[in-house]
Amino acid sequence: MPSNNRILTILGSTGSIGIQTLQVLESTIENFELGYITANSKIDLLEEQALKLNPYGVAISDEKYYLEFKKKTNFKGKILCGEEGVLEAAAYKENDMVLSALVGFSGVKPTLSAINSSTTVALANKETLVSAGSIITKAAKEKKVQIIAVDSEHSAVLQCLIGESIDSIEKIILTASGGPFWTTPEEEFESLSVEQALEHPNWSMGSKITIDSATMINKGFEVIEAHWLFDLPIDKIEVLIHPQSIVHSLVQFIDGSVKAQLGMPDMRIPISFALSYPKRLNYNFPRLDLTDIGILTFEIPDYFRFPCLKLAYDAIEKGGSATVVLNAANEIAVKAFLEGRISFTDIAQLIDKALNKIKIITQPTLDEIIESDKETRLIVKSLINDKLK
Amino acid sequence: MPSNNRILTILGSTGSIGIQTLQVLESTIENFELGYITANSKIDLLEEQALKLNPYGVAISDEKYYLEFKKKTNFKGKILCGEEGVLEAAAYKENDMVLSALVGFSGVKPTLSAINSSTTVALANKETLVSAGSIITKAAKEKKVQIIAVDSEHSAVLQCLIGESIDSIEKIILTASGGPFWTTPEEEFESLSVEQALEHPNWSMGSKITIDSATMINKGFEVIEAHWLFDLPIDKIEVLIHPQSIVHSLVQFIDGSVKAQLGMPDMRIPISFALSYPKRLNYNFPRLDLTDIGILTFEIPDYFRFPCLKLAYDAIEKGGSATVVLNAANEIAVKAFLEGRISFTDIAQLIDKALNKIKIITQPTLDEIIESDKETRLIVKSLINDKLK
Repeated sequence: MPSNNRILTILGSTGSIGIQTLQVLESTIENFELGYITANSKIDLLEEQALKLNPYGVAISDEKYYLEFKKKTNFKGKILCGEEGVLEAAAYKENDMVLSALVGFSGVKPTLSAINSSTTVALANKETLVSAGSIITKAAKEKKVQIIAVDSEHSAVLQCLIGESIDSIEKIILTASGGPFWTTPEEEFESLSVEQALEHPNWSMGSKITIDSATMINKGFEVIEAHWLFDLPIDKIEVLIHPQSIVHSLVQFIDGSVKAQLGMPDMRIPISFALSYPKRLNYNFPRLDLTDIGILTFEIPDYFRFPCLKLAYDAIEKGGSATVVLNAANEIAVKAFLEGRISFTDIAQLIDKALNKIKIITQPTLDEIIESDKETRLIVKSLINDKLK
Repeated sequence: MPSNNRILTILGSTGSIGIQTLQVLESTIENFELGYITANSKIDLLEEQALKLNPYGVAISDEKYYLEFKKKTNFKGKILCGEEGVLEAAAYKENDMVLSALVGFSGVKPTLSAINSSTTVALANKETLVSAGSIITKAAKEKKVQIIAVDSEHSAVLQCLIGESIDSIEKIILTASGGPFWTTPEEEFESLSVEQALEHPNWSMGSKITIDSATMINKGFEVIEAHWLFDLPIDKIEVLIHPQSIVHSLVQFIDGSVKAQLGMPDMRIPISFALSYPKRLNYNFPRLDLTDIGILTFEIPDYFRFPCLKLAYDAIEKGGSATVVLNAANEIAVKAFLEGRISFTDIAQLIDKALNKIKIITQPTLDEIIESDKETRLIVKSLINDKLK
């Protein structure tokens, strides 16, 4: 093995971003070597990936699946178990970069683990910054670790900011497709089905983030994420509806000039940029042809039909652990919606209730964040159960 | 005077770009000091500018107007005369930057004069690179002088390339509004009037460049300019019709990512960027609001109704002095059109004839370029006279 390759560990290699990251690596594998790849339960896919790409090791967070994998696998590398195993994979001392593509709050500790090992983090897990932005960015500053955005919007901002001074930013404009319900009349929201919500018009993503796009809380998360990633006050971060998802975000500068990053809605582009940042590597992803697309449109966000976006802004205003509550309440509500237990509009109502009910801690420690996360989940679960009684 | 100010000389301060440059300077005058400002004939405006902004000196290229100015002016600084005077202003040893906003071929020698004095050039005069691109860029390389684009399109490309590697460029896409006749049916082109041609839908510019926009030869010039400025082969430079003139140009990279610079169609933005490059200064120019604009559209260029754009590409293919002929023939034809002596469609026909009639020199010297320019002008003038007989 050539020793000057970058060693990459992928947390969540069997999820949507993980799979696409491995697709990106296939065409430039000569530049990378795999440290660990990790999964929660999809052990068949994990084994297939491991046998094909020969990482240093794998980690499986669910103990039951770990035991099953261990028993039947042909993979000869290290096999780690449980949450501790994922933390060990994130902290693997040979890592040059950890790509965190875990889903939801589960990304917080492994991301911190990578940072504390002084490893560059490519962050595809926005809930980490939503829940623990202050702690994560403080740790990154202390360890002089760079956090590189993988989200298409934040990657767009990062690309627009290459070579620019942070002082010259006037504002960041995050684009939002508006999701599958941007043109749906308000009276239909109550009865929207899981199938309808899972049909995102432009992006192919995991189910959690697809529902988050449908409620537009995802865009609220991204505002919070941008706040932490680019160290900007919330009033310098705007949301712009752009249904075609071609302009991935924009930066307006103090001289009135605006820069934007555009491309086909294909997550492999921001993933590849994060992996090779600040350089670019040659990839044959589909090219953008603006004459083929013809028209790009832009609209003002609608906080009325999409109260989740408004709730996200409210949570940021409240500050402290409010965004932990926002995220945890959303995770439980989305899960219940996906299970067909609550309606689409219940998601926003449950988050709203949780934000009003749960005590907000101004400057929470990591333990307090974890505590607030747990408490919120319990309360929202009980709110759902009460509702269903 | 504070000694760490940048000293700026403006060649062509009474033209459209010159006037807008002085507007830009008004709000950030604390960062700049004026070396020379120059004019051809508009001596009343030149005196007003000189008395208000107190440059080190002025130069007037037309001797008649120089004498008139000299006789009546209250300006106490240096007053230079003729083409030699403009060259001296460009070569003024205190200059930190020369902004070349001369019109047409007259920009070549003063731009070279600035480069040979090792002064950074902000280039708003595209005909300089169209006519003498190889000589200008060779001199700039030798003297390690940077040429900064002022054209909105090239400024957009430059802004997209900050912090990027030249190796990662896949192609440059120059946007074109299509000018006032983009939607005009072909059969009406023969009878288009000067007044119609001078009504550009988006940009407020001088009359020469406005006609060049109407014929779209301007975009051909910009392709040639981009070729020299960014050292890229012509097949990596495309033209994209974008009638709203909001996206000022784009760069596509080898990973499929595209960056664009956007803004209101206001030349003060690219001018200010050139003046403060690579930094940005704070300006209160009108801000872009994409929700207000709503729709951006993109189309394929039409070489049939706009043969001048095709002629420009042909001239680049021919190489050598062909672009000198292209430019000189166009200057004479546009002048004749503005004087009401020929029709709109005659412009392309005259350029075509000139390109077929005049011998092309493969690697012309500056003298040969000047000679070819003169010869073309004589031939096109006689073609016009023959036509009018």
